[in-house]
Amino acid sequence: MTPVHPVEPVSARDLGGYDHECDVLVAGFGCAGAAAAFEAATAGASVLVLEKAGGPGGTSAVSGGELYLGGGTRIQQACGFDDTPDEMYAYLEAALGPHADTAKLRLYCDQSVEHFEWLRARGVAFKPSLYDAPTWMPYTEDGLMWLGENAWPYNTLAKPVPRGHRPVAKGFGGQVLMEKLTAAAIEAGVVTHADTAAANLVLDDEGRVAGVVARRYGERVTYRARKAVILTTGGFVDNEEMLAHHAPVLIGHGKVSDGNSDGSGIRMATAIGAATRRMGVVEVALTALPAMLVRGMLVDGLGRRFINEDVYPGMFSHHAVLHQPGPYWAVVDEEGFESVPEDERWGVRPAFAAESLAELEAELGMPPGSLENTVEVYNRHAEKGEDPYFHKDPRWLRPLRPPFAAIDPREGFFGLGREGSGTGTGVNGFTLGGLHTTVDGAVLNHSGAPIPGLYAAGRAAAGIHGEGYVSGTSLGDGTFFGRRAGRAAAGAGTA
Amino acid sequence: MTPVHPVEPVSARDLGGYDHECDVLVAGFGCAGAAAAFEAATAGASVLVLEKAGGPGGTSAVSGGELYLGGGTRIQQACGFDDTPDEMYAYLEAALGPHADTAKLRLYCDQSVEHFEWLRARGVAFKPSLYDAPTWMPYTEDGLMWLGENAWPYNTLAKPVPRGHRPVAKGFGGQVLMEKLTAAAIEAGVVTHADTAAANLVLDDEGRVAGVVARRYGERVTYRARKAVILTTGGFVDNEEMLAHHAPVLIGHGKVSDGNSDGSGIRMATAIGAATRRMGVVEVALTALPAMLVRGMLVDGLGRRFINEDVYPGMFSHHAVLHQPGPYWAVVDEEGFESVPEDERWGVRPAFAAESLAELEAELGMPPGSLENTVEVYNRHAEKGEDPYFHKDPRWLRPLRPPFAAIDPREGFFGLGREGSGTGTGVNGFTLGGLHTTVDGAVLNHSGAPIPGLYAAGRAAAGIHGEGYVSGTSLGDGTFFGRRAGRAAAGAGTA
Repeated sequence: MTPVHPVEPVSARDLGGYDHECDVLVAGFGCAGAAAAFEAATAGASVLVLEKAGGPGGTSAVSGGELYLGGGTRIQQACGFDDTPDEMYAYLEAALGPHADTAKLRLYCDQSVEHFEWLRARGVAFKPSLYDAPTWMPYTEDGLMWLGENAWPYNTLAKPVPRGHRPVAKGFGGQVLMEKLTAAAIEAGVVTHADTAAANLVLDDEGRVAGVVARRYGERVTYRARKAVILTTGGFVDNEEMLAHHAPVLIGHGKVSDGNSDGSGIRMATAIGAATRRMGVVEVALTALPAMLVRGMLVDGLGRRFINEDVYPGMFSHHAVLHQPGPYWAVVDEEGFESVPEDERWGVRPAFAAESLAELEAELGMPPGSLENTVEVYNRHAEKGEDPYFHKDPRWLRPLRPPFAAIDPREGFFGLGREGSGTGTGVNGFTLGGLHTTVDGAVLNHSGAPIPGLYAAGRAAAGIHGEGYVSGTSLGDGTFFGRRAGRAAAGAGTA
Repeated sequence: MTPVHPVEPVSARDLGGYDHECDVLVAGFGCAGAAAAFEAATAGASVLVLEKAGGPGGTSAVSGGELYLGGGTRIQQACGFDDTPDEMYAYLEAALGPHADTAKLRLYCDQSVEHFEWLRARGVAFKPSLYDAPTWMPYTEDGLMWLGENAWPYNTLAKPVPRGHRPVAKGFGGQVLMEKLTAAAIEAGVVTHADTAAANLVLDDEGRVAGVVARRYGERVTYRARKAVILTTGGFVDNEEMLAHHAPVLIGHGKVSDGNSDGSGIRMATAIGAATRRMGVVEVALTALPAMLVRGMLVDGLGRRFINEDVYPGMFSHHAVLHQPGPYWAVVDEEGFESVPEDERWGVRPAFAAESLAELEAELGMPPGSLENTVEVYNRHAEKGEDPYFHKDPRWLRPLRPPFAAIDPREGFFGLGREGSGTGTGVNGFTLGGLHTTVDGAVLNHSGAPIPGLYAAGRAAAGIHGEGYVSGTSLGDGTFFGRRAGRAAAGAGTA
């Protein structure tokens, strides 16, 4: 278990003085912290950022770097796509739902083009070309990608337009994104205290957040925040006890984290009576290769399909890990396997191969006739270019013919034996629940009133997500609402 | 939206005096409150119970009254079943899991026979006969019933022994149970203030809970609790805003509640920094008739089975409502329908009937061939007495023959058009998440330390449940841990 450090608040009166002072104190230097710090400093506040690790970056820096942006960005236009905030909203409300935060989501969509331009102005560059196939992350440098907008049922709910924006980078783009945002914040005058973890909030006699007590190499360091404290400490996937209490589905799986997603900001704030939202909601990625699945099928341990394989990969992951007991298998035929570009195979090899489905289903321990039945039904409809069960795009429909192979979907992008593959379950995730905030990042108490002097953004807060998740919406809402929190915090207070 | 009353704490210093004083103040007079009040009074404390409604009972009184008890009660023995705490634990850990609270569960099982005898001593009577078929609630007065112990996979994990104990009652037994428990508490000297809703906790200068501020007909009434406050205010299914934040899956469905499951205790405690657990976990009942399903099949809108139909009805409900998009259909043949005892039909009539499955699946809007395929596969195995997909008990396996009928599973026990059927979704539920407590009911803060003077039990607290639920475990853990909280509260404190 993660050791439990007391997170209860400290009284300003008991504290006496402070080691450091600033207008706005930001706890956590990931994407939300960087955006908040930049905006607060640009608004004229003196800003200090505490970071538990040795330097800026956080989980954002180890992410893929995709940002979910749309409504008509210049990258979308250059690739020939017309988009509107309303179409973007319609897709996200469905894909991030049910029960997404519609007020936050509306704002996020309406101001997405402005946010795209803000990122560009910070030096984040995107290549104006589209990667046009389902994938976790293109192996190319294409700056635009589909994130499920063109898959059923979403293609019936909103005009299908790609909105995954990827900063120019070799492979993972999170590092590049954070280099730009960090540089912008530093240039705006933000001061960083690294190796310094916020531990407790300081409350004055009126119950206003007046600063934080932090730990630096085991020593206590105190900070006064004249205007406000902004918690951008990230989620809690690294805190096993919090997972057990709120999101146990992630226990034992790989973690999308820099190792410091310890939930400290959420704990500090709830200790003073802050409300939370949706603490059980998670992102999970089943590392299975989309390029393989669209050419074959994803089945459960009973040999049954359960989703159209051309959805956003996070969607089949969610459906599988949260709703469908494992094991899972990717079943492809030879023609399908061979047609996957080498770069999209990520070194994956079939676990089983067989001339007949009867043989394959026996190898996989499925009920006799089960996989045979599934493929027979699939083929019968695929011959007509149809998938009446799950509506996979006809582009990917073709009867499957022997020989067949089964691939363990734990192997793949983040798969077994690969660096960063974590526990070998083939599942990696992080938490989406957090503090209940207004659209300006003000943290609310259990009566719905703002706690004076306290803001939060990024995964320390509950963002635009309902039960669903789409790549790029965490960096997206972290930077977007981080900016708003930074501006509000700089304008707030009694200084 | 539910109106938001401020729940932030009140300072004892600001309060001056109190209108009423007692040793132990219990907020909420359902089963947990009754058990806590009885034990605290029996231990010598002066006990006052506040109840928002006009009299005792709470949600417990509108429930079915089943209590999940075992380990070898005299009712189990009289019906010819040997049971042990270990077998009971093995079943519940699986059925209430994953991620049940094992410390609470262990205690609950080890002391279940003692708890049974405690209930008997309070006048709760059980008839020593078994109802031997899957059902939500027997139409007989049998005192013992199966709650999924004999269904796959649970029958492979623990010795199948029935543990559903039903107080002698015509129909719903919750009213009888609460009459007995209320009478016992009153007789032990407990004083009740009805029409009085606890609204805020009172904190002394040391941060100890010293009482509550309540509302009675719009007037403020203050209570000093010399030893402790016990929150037994129930869950939050009636609080739409809390549902949106924590358990949105229940929005729009029917509520298993007396109408006062407003989450007030959870909100009052979290406002002073109490921790919660598993706020998203819910019980849901799809009102479909088990007697109909076991004789046919439960299918989704694609005509596919997804679970063995002889499981505890809450289990197919959970699987359906939480994991399987609707619609759902109960498909039976004429022979199956006719063999359901009239008393187990609850007036249900088929929505569609057809001579062929092709006709029926067309009526139901299923993909062509889908239901035909499902029944063909089912029949092929049923002829051999097998169900290799879901392992339904051979007792219920039989090839289905024309004519066929489809029943809307929203019709049934709590079904469409029936009194108390709520919204017509055919789903009724309540919340299982709540305050984080020790096995003695002490409410913990976010650092894992008890908040002095504060206890909780029943659905205001997180109990023995992981993600699962079985009938009788809410009244069961409410009374069991209510008793423990009452004893601890009476012995605690500085009086």
